[in-house]
Amino acid sequence: MPMKIAPTLAGDVVRALRSVVGDSTVTLHSPTFEGNEWLYLKECLDSTYVSSVGKFVDRFEDDLAKYTGSKYVVSVVNGTAALHIALKLAGVQAGDEVLTPALTFVATANAVTYCNATPHFIDIDEQTLGIDAARLREYLISNTSQQSGRCINKNTGKIIRALVPMHTFGHPSDLENLISIAHDFNIVLVEDAAESLGSYYNGQHTGTFGLLGTLSFNGNKTITTGGGGAILTNNSDLARHAKHLTTTAKLPHAWDFLHDEIGYNYRMPNINAALGCAQLEQLPDKVESKRNLFKKYQHAFDNVQGVRLFSEPKNCHSNYWLQTLLLDEKQAENRDLVLRETNTAGLMTRPAWVLLNELAPFKNFPSADLTTAQSLSRRIINIPSSPGLA
Amino acid sequence: MPMKIAPTLAGDVVRALRSVVGDSTVTLHSPTFEGNEWLYLKECLDSTYVSSVGKFVDRFEDDLAKYTGSKYVVSVVNGTAALHIALKLAGVQAGDEVLTPALTFVATANAVTYCNATPHFIDIDEQTLGIDAARLREYLISNTSQQSGRCINKNTGKIIRALVPMHTFGHPSDLENLISIAHDFNIVLVEDAAESLGSYYNGQHTGTFGLLGTLSFNGNKTITTGGGGAILTNNSDLARHAKHLTTTAKLPHAWDFLHDEIGYNYRMPNINAALGCAQLEQLPDKVESKRNLFKKYQHAFDNVQGVRLFSEPKNCHSNYWLQTLLLDEKQAENRDLVLRETNTAGLMTRPAWVLLNELAPFKNFPSADLTTAQSLSRRIINIPSSPGLA
Repeated sequence: MPMKIAPTLAGDVVRALRSVVGDSTVTLHSPTFEGNEWLYLKECLDSTYVSSVGKFVDRFEDDLAKYTGSKYVVSVVNGTAALHIALKLAGVQAGDEVLTPALTFVATANAVTYCNATPHFIDIDEQTLGIDAARLREYLISNTSQQSGRCINKNTGKIIRALVPMHTFGHPSDLENLISIAHDFNIVLVEDAAESLGSYYNGQHTGTFGLLGTLSFNGNKTITTGGGGAILTNNSDLARHAKHLTTTAKLPHAWDFLHDEIGYNYRMPNINAALGCAQLEQLPDKVESKRNLFKKYQHAFDNVQGVRLFSEPKNCHSNYWLQTLLLDEKQAENRDLVLRETNTAGLMTRPAWVLLNELAPFKNFPSADLTTAQSLSRRIINIPSSPGLA
Repeated sequence: MPMKIAPTLAGDVVRALRSVVGDSTVTLHSPTFEGNEWLYLKECLDSTYVSSVGKFVDRFEDDLAKYTGSKYVVSVVNGTAALHIALKLAGVQAGDEVLTPALTFVATANAVTYCNATPHFIDIDEQTLGIDAARLREYLISNTSQQSGRCINKNTGKIIRALVPMHTFGHPSDLENLISIAHDFNIVLVEDAAESLGSYYNGQHTGTFGLLGTLSFNGNKTITTGGGGAILTNNSDLARHAKHLTTTAKLPHAWDFLHDEIGYNYRMPNINAALGCAQLEQLPDKVESKRNLFKKYQHAFDNVQGVRLFSEPKNCHSNYWLQTLLLDEKQAENRDLVLRETNTAGLMTRPAWVLLNELAPFKNFPSADLTTAQSLSRRIINIPSSPGLA
């Protein structure tokens, strides 16, 4: 009887949201600039170093290394570029397959295709919204074989080169078990931590568990550089190579233009890094605000029937990048009604991404069973999450 | 007897440069921020729209369209990204060949490889420093055949899909004859106008002659957005598709994430566009300053033996992005001495790029005879060119 329940649920959600965010129109996630943004932008302009080199790029990388605990950080133009280069450095080659969750932003799979490799979609679990490690292990046991230390997809004959967990809405995936799978099946772990700056798994920052990890500083993220991303690694050779590849692969020389491989123009401009330095100083406060917002929402949604607020997985400290409602299975068909009523009320909400295996460009790529992803994709609603709302 | 001549030439060059730029240390090209940069950056921050959407992106594209006379402009993250997408939209596919000058920045050829196509290097001429149209025509007559309206390289069997003139140091290539070649041989013309914003050929802005053209706003260019580029076209379908491909190929929808092809995260952030709007307002003055600097250098180098200052090709109005000395053939072996003495004296100079066919990643790709490019690459020295020097 959805026609009867639906108005109630949508109305309840609107009221619960209003009780937290007040009466004004609110976006899904807006950045705030409350620190040294001005000072650093002015310093950057005054220096005339706004572009491909400058002290803010170095400083942003150093500050990020300190914050995340990653030994090395290479800043780049956005998270997609970061993942493209991380996959290349992980050894992903033309014809390989790369395991990614089916429920993720399209950039995760796009980056795989830039390596002329194929995304291979796997299921997620409801505890983390990230890859379901137990089911992945079963799937790999049934569908792969080991040949000369490589994991071969028995159905396609292709090498499964990398595994890319994405820490959905800032919540860490089941890293301990994913690391174990990567080890057991000879697959390289590369973390897509685009959404999880400020999120920790067992006290260690996301993006620092894999051989490489990547971050995003797009305008909708916890901190922003306008557009930007970063590659994290503890391997000095990979870090050097990442910097080289993202800066046109130019060799050091007093004046000659010598490039020893096909490179990319992926460096973060200094002016974007200047913004990033100021934003990063405010990151602990922003994460704290976002965690407080979660508590307020938790209180507000405590008595709303048919929906629950997603909370961080155990042993995790999440940045709560996007606050997330999970509709009960029987309310899934009312998702669009809730979306419509909240957005009409000036409360910006959105569903999860369409599963990537359902998009035209990825329809013919391999997929595991995606039962949980399919269920969650019909039941997730992200609600206003700006740190300023707390 | 180079050992005797060399010290004189290098000393003469240093003296001539000093007579124009004065006693201080000077860079090759530095940006200046003398207009509304502050105002627009502040407006951008205050709006909180620093990232993937915002009014400065739209305005920058509109202003560029007005300035260049291109019907449509799509701003992107840098000139390399612009060329990558322009080549894709020109129909460049895996296995194709794309004609590019051997003397250009590595990005021209890199962008070709991103399409899984092969750069095919051709010679330049000393009047324009761009592609030698007459010799290209001869080369195509001898080395290609037409099959079903396509130009086939008889030596490799591959389709020659596109021709990419690059307007070297801001000087327009021989566009009239290149257009005629593209027409006669069924090759798509895509202009790499990364260096030539503000340069005109027969009164028409460079980058608007081909099916598509591309610009760069890197920090070393005539105007800068920190990092940035743009795609120019007069074709509305291509413009729409360029915007679509550079913004993750997302379809318009109230909330769903639907992507109908493999897209790219190539959009220019609003904060970079804000800088660009302010810079673009100053472009006419900057070009005027750079043309005045040329006249000063012309006077200063008038009596220096063994070298001449490169001046704009006939029927062209050049932005003189990088001022260029051409050493006489017999002085070529003294190029490094001149580079060393000028740089040691605090006058930043640099040679032309190493010819791309000589770089490791491009060594095995097809090349025409490159006699003039080889000669020029040993004889070119770029000298300090900032608009502020005039």
